[in-house]
Formats: sequence, C-alpha cells, structure tokens
Amino acid sequence: MAELVGNLLVGQSGGPTAVINASLAGVLQEAGRHGCIEEIYGGVNGILGILNEELVDINEEKAKTIEGLKYTPAAALGTCRYKIDFKKKAEKAAQDMDRLFEVFQAHNIRYFFYIGGNDSQDTSHKIHLEAVKRNWDMRVIGVPKTIDNDLPHTDSCPGYGSVIKYNAASVMEIGFDVGSMATDEGSCCIVEVMGRSAGWIAAGTVLAKRTAACPPHIVLCPEVPFNEDKFLARVKEVVEANHYCVVVVGEGLKDEAGKELGADKSRVDAFGHPLLSGVADVLAEEVYGKLDLKTRTVKLGYAQRAASHFASATDANNAHACGVAGVKAAVEGQSGFMVKIVRETAADGSVKWSTGLQDLGDIANVEHFIPRDWITEDGFLPNEKFVAYARPLIEGEVKFPVEGGLPKYAVLEKSKIEKKLAPRA
Amino acid sequence: MAELVGNLLVGQSGGPTAVINASLAGVLQEAGRHGCIEEIYGGVNGILGILNEELVDINEEKAKTIEGLKYTPAAALGTCRYKIDFKKKAEKAAQDMDRLFEVFQAHNIRYFFYIGGNDSQDTSHKIHLEAVKRNWDMRVIGVPKTIDNDLPHTDSCPGYGSVIKYNAASVMEIGFDVGSMATDEGSCCIVEVMGRSAGWIAAGTVLAKRTAACPPHIVLCPEVPFNEDKFLARVKEVVEANHYCVVVVGEGLKDEAGKELGADKSRVDAFGHPLLSGVADVLAEEVYGKLDLKTRTVKLGYAQRAASHFASATDANNAHACGVAGVKAAVEGQSGFMVKIVRETAADGSVKWSTGLQDLGDIANVEHFIPRDWITEDGFLPNEKFVAYARPLIEGEVKFPVEGGLPKYAVLEKSKIEKKLAPRA
Repeated sequence: MAELVGNLLVGQSGGPTAVINASLAGVLQEAGRHGCIEEIYGGVNGILGILNEELVDINEEKAKTIEGLKYTPAAALGTCRYKIDFKKKAEKAAQDMDRLFEVFQAHNIRYFFYIGGNDSQDTSHKIHLEAVKRNWDMRVIGVPKTIDNDLPHTDSCPGYGSVIKYNAASVMEIGFDVGSMATDEGSCCIVEVMGRSAGWIAAGTVLAKRTAACPPHIVLCPEVPFNEDKFLARVKEVVEANHYCVVVVGEGLKDEAGKELGADKSRVDAFGHPLLSGVADVLAEEVYGKLDLKTRTVKLGYAQRAASHFASATDANNAHACGVAGVKAAVEGQSGFMVKIVRETAADGSVKWSTGLQDLGDIANVEHFIPRDWITEDGFLPNEKFVAYARPLIEGEVKFPVEGGLPKYAVLEKSKIEKKLAPRA
Repeated sequence: MAELVGNLLVGQSGGPTAVINASLAGVLQEAGRHGCIEEIYGGVNGILGILNEELVDINEEKAKTIEGLKYTPAAALGTCRYKIDFKKKAEKAAQDMDRLFEVFQAHNIRYFFYIGGNDSQDTSHKIHLEAVKRNWDMRVIGVPKTIDNDLPHTDSCPGYGSVIKYNAASVMEIGFDVGSMATDEGSCCIVEVMGRSAGWIAAGTVLAKRTAACPPHIVLCPEVPFNEDKFLARVKEVVEANHYCVVVVGEGLKDEAGKELGADKSRVDAFGHPLLSGVADVLAEEVYGKLDLKTRTVKLGYAQRAASHFASATDANNAHACGVAGVKAAVEGQSGFMVKIVRETAADGSVKWSTGLQDLGDIANVEHFIPRDWITEDGFLPNEKFVAYARPLIEGEVKFPVEGGLPKYAVLEKSKIEKKLAPRA
C-alpha cells in the first residue's frame, strides 16, 4: 500500500460521553506520530460544522490540552445529531454529500475519523462508499462511542463503562440513603437512567448489588416488556422484606404492547426517535397510587453521561486505544472500518482488551441488545452472566486535576481554519 | 462541675447527608476517650427507634468500621422523620416524652446526642428542657446536619459543602455536555436540586461558573419569587448569546403569590411539609412550549445528598469536628446547646473553622435564608458575596476505598442491646 500523504479531519457526533474526548485524544496523539499526516483538523459540531467548512487547527492546541482531553467530558470539538438521510431526504442528502467532498477536497482531507454511535457509523459508512465511488483517495475509519453500548461486533462501547460506574455508585449511594430512612411504613425510590431501546445502562447498576438485600432491587430494561401487576407485586415483596425498594428503570421501557411508558409522541429528535422523559414518574404514580408507598424519583439525565469525576479508567483507556488504533489502521491503508474492542479473558478470569476492525457495513443501524439469558427469568434483574460481562468495564478511576474544589477540565482553543469555499447553499 | 458517670446515646435524624456519619464518627471516637462515659449506644432510626427501645452497642463495632463512617453516606444508625409534636398532638407528645425518659433511665443514659436539622434540634431542645424538669441529670447536645444549610447561628451546616460540591461538579459536567451539543437551534437544560424553602443548594451550583459564559446561566432560588416572563426573556437572551442555557432550580421555587411551582398539595410529610417534585418539568414545559426550545431535565434527587464519592473534605472535617466538640462540651458539663461552626477568615483570605455552642432555644424552628444582597438584583444568579462564602466549603476531596470499581462504604454491625422495658403502648 502506497503511503497516502495529506491532511486529517476528525469529528465527534451524537450524544457526548465521559470518554469521547479520550478517543479524540487517541486520534490526535497518534496522528502526530505519522509523517504522512500533514495537517490535523477538527470538525466543529461533527458533520454539521464540516458542511459549513468549520474546521479548527489542532496543531495550534497545546499538547497538555490534548492530554487533558483524556479526563474531560463531552465533545471538545462540539457534536451534532445531523443525519445524512438518503432514505427520507434523498435530494438533501445528495447535496450534503457533494458539499462534504468539496470540503474534503478543498482541504486535501485524506484521513477522516468520525467518533460516534450507530447513526454516526452509518454516516462514516456512506462517506467511505462515496469516497470510493468518487475515486477520492481517503481513509475513513469510524471510532465507536455510545453510552448505550448497543453497537454490534464490539465487546463494549467507549462511554458505557463510565456511565455504569457512575450510575452504579449513585444507585449504591441512593440505596444507603433510602435504606437508612426505611421504617415500617416502607418507601420506594425510582431511578431513571438513559437507554432508548437497549437496557445496558439500566442493567449496569446491578453492579451496586453486593448482597441479595442490597439495591438495586428491581432493574427494568426496555428488552423485557413491562407488566404493571407483576412489577407492583415485586415492589410489595421487596418492601415487606427490606422496608424499602430501589428500582432502576431505563428511559425507553415499553409495555407488553410495545408502547413506551414515558414517551410523549409529539416530540421527536432529528432521527425521528421520540424524546423520552418521565418513565420514573409514571412508575412512581403507580407505586404511590396502588401501594400507597412513599415514592421519590431521581432522573440522572445528562449528569450520568458527563460524569468524568467518577469515570472508569478501563473505559477511558479503551476509548483512547480505539482512537490510536483507528489512526494506525488508516495509515496502514485500511478504510471503511469501525474500530472494535476485543475482550480476552485469561484462565484466571482476568480481562484484557485489544482492538480490531469491523466492516462499517456490518455496524450501521444494527442495534445490539442484552441477551435475554443475561436477565433473570422473571425479568427483574440482570444475572451473573451480565455481571461477569460488565464488572471489568468499571475497574479503575480516571484521575483529573482539581481547582477550587471542582474538576479542571480541558478546553480546546479551536483556532479556526480559513474557509476556502463559498458558503453552503 | 462534678463528673457525670453513665452511658451515652446518640441518634441520627432527618434526611441523610454525605457526612452525617462523619459527625457520628466524631461523637463515637471522642466518647471513647472519656472514662466517665461507660457504655456507648446508638439509637436505631433516631427517636423512633429509641421510643421502641431499639438500641445498639457501639462497643461491639470494629474501630475501622467507625473510622469508615467518615466517608460513608447516609445515616449508619438509621434515621427518621418522627416529630414529638406538642402543638398538634399534645397527648401523644407527652406519652412519647414519658417513654423516652423511661428508656433513658432504664439504660442510665447521661449523655444524649442528636444529629439533625431544624426539627431535630427542636426535639433535642425539648428533651433538654424535660430532663431539667424531671431532674434527670443528662447532658443533651444537638449536632448540626442538613444539606439545606438553613440552621441559624452556624457558619454552615455539615452536609451542605458536600451537596454543593457534587451538584456544582454535575452542573459543570452537564454544561460541558449541553454546550458541546449546542448548535444554532439552541437548547436548554433544567437541573432540579433540593431545597425546600431556602435556596442554598441551588445557589451553590454557581461555583461551577468559571467565566461569565459558563453554566449555570440561571439559578432560581426559592427566596426570589419566580416571574415567568422575566425568566423566559432571560433564557432567550442566554440562548441567543451561547446557543444553550443551563438553568438550576431549587425544588421549592415559588411564584409571586407564594405558591410552589412543583407542589402537589395532596402529599405531605410527617412535619406537614408538602412533598415536592417536578418544578424542573414545570419550567421545561414553559421553555419548550413558549420558546420552542429543545429542553431536557435532570433531577438529582437523593443522589445529591448521598454522593460521598465526591464529598467535600472540608465539610467532612467540620462534620467530624462537630461530633467531637459535642462530646467534649457535654463532658465539661454543658447541656442544651447545639454545636455550631465558626468561620475565621485570615487577612490573606484563607479560611479556617472552629466550633462553638449555641443555645438550642435559639435554633429550633428558625430558618436561615440567603441574604437578598448575595443574589444579583435581577434575582437570576448568586453574586460574589455568595461565592466568597461558599467556595471554601467545597475544598478538598474525601478519600474512600474502592472495591470492584465502586466505593466500599462502612456498614455497622448494629448488635442489639437487650430490652429492659415492656413494649411501647
């Protein structure tokens, strides 16, 4: 494979995580090691900014700022939920693709990295196919990212280990709190966590459970259809045994007819997914109304996916490794792949990870769910198979500097590259 | 003052905090140093358990468990919201008081410590007056605790520094997240925090604000009557400037008529306070409905007051010092006081704390609010006076052991003391 000389462009996409910047740091740090990569650019707000030719010069950033990305939450370059939708908006999508390649060519982009989840891998796949079609020699690599952990073919998704570490710690702490207030009257606390269609995030909180009596007592995943009667019966049972019950619920929980409990159908995001909120409140009304039990809710919301103050070092390391591996693969001539994480379990049970490549065509728009046999038969708790999978992902704490009692996160300068094109039509 | 020989009883009351156990550790560790204190007992679930003669033997606990209380959230002895209410339930209250003194006398309790907030200090005050009246020689000391920071006469309340440290970190992280997703369309995130009538907790998140453009952009405290038009105008202004807006709201926010925005009047707790929920959702509906702005909510709920994984070392140290000082004062002959925290600011601006005593009669049922001149004139942000007060309270991080990627908190054995009385009528 002949050496490909030119510039690199990297963008971040979709909902941020605690470690998406660690992947960015991996891309940027590895890119600096290869002479064939001349300029290193960041796309502002992912594809959306690239379409507007909003590029920033990474070589103007301090090395210590790049290093600081390893412990900084959210998308340092900015992110977007913009989709190039050939199915629903074919004409617009074709225009977008033309524009993207104008930008790539104007800035001699030969290496393109897109860090994101399902939709972003789909975008990367389309760009790769288009580059081949247009005969524009450019290496396109998708770098995985999503707290939802629903990308196929990878052991886990960067961002997932950190969100469940923080959520499990929070559920443990909430459990101490609610448990210490538990008297004969009983009480219930319902914690709503993210997870639109897969229950990986909700399930991860089971790691807080050190004994059978410990919270969480019930974990409701969208994979298991919700049955109100069985749920209320279980809450009652748990409260009778412990005087309190901590329930964790994924925001996308569905009833047996497939209807989302917390969905407000009138609000949708750019991809047509309904904006969800309030499943914890729906359940709280049921528990309070039908069991007459004092019930409070917690909705960790954005706090959970940005909680770098208690991120998983394992997760951050894997995220960084994915960025590094992506650049190495591209420099070696690969294109059209997503970097995946590969688990190696030693005979003594210890776990290590390496990276591999998977064709982007295998990834795009495929969702990976929790295997049904990783959840107890009654559907109320992830079982030991899930725990064996998830436990290693939360090992280790990411160190970060503190100033005035609060984390001191890194912020990019974002020195803008001069535009060469006329504004987008 | 003649030496008073006898047993010690300590209880915890009201909503738990990240450091109420640090105060408990202070009481227990200091008590062990005084020969006049014979047995050391803990009351299970505060007054409620004491009325049922549910006492545990602290001398059966390992020293390292007691030491571990310094980093363990929630009330290790259990807590309650039980009130001895002479105003509304005089007969029941008189019976309760008789029963309490039966328990005190049966177990020769000569030192009584009650760790709690406003209502608990009121309980301590009544017990002190009753002991004097009944001529039962017992030293009664209240140890302050409340995330609400609304006790008078003390610089701050143990629990407050930790809740605002965690909340400020969360708001900072949420700000990074929402900011990184901000595009021309704009978005808003509303974070609901605790605070029934005082806005100390909401105000504390202003510490996340490192520049004028940083979140939180708007902080709504219950002390400032809410005006919807002005609020929406400010959100619009912030979004026009930054493309996003992070709002923090105290759960007890009231409109100009004094009505709580998130109150459901049909639900009240044992003290007659309404159970609040949902002010963030109320505001989100306004922002989404009237400004057509994508709006998400976060409700940290119990997670915030139990977040020992990011507790303030300053707060934990002050909490411990209050427990120690309470025992020292009692051994020296004092009774009927609450330990208070006294701030000493050096010429160079550095802050130290010591403890003092305040008559319980000055504390009970008095609420301390944020001075109006610590909030900007328009009412939308705490100002530099507030920051100068609050910043030192979040300094330092509490260390805790980790096991399997999660905190390993201490759990008391709670070896029960044999009951000597007939069950409570």
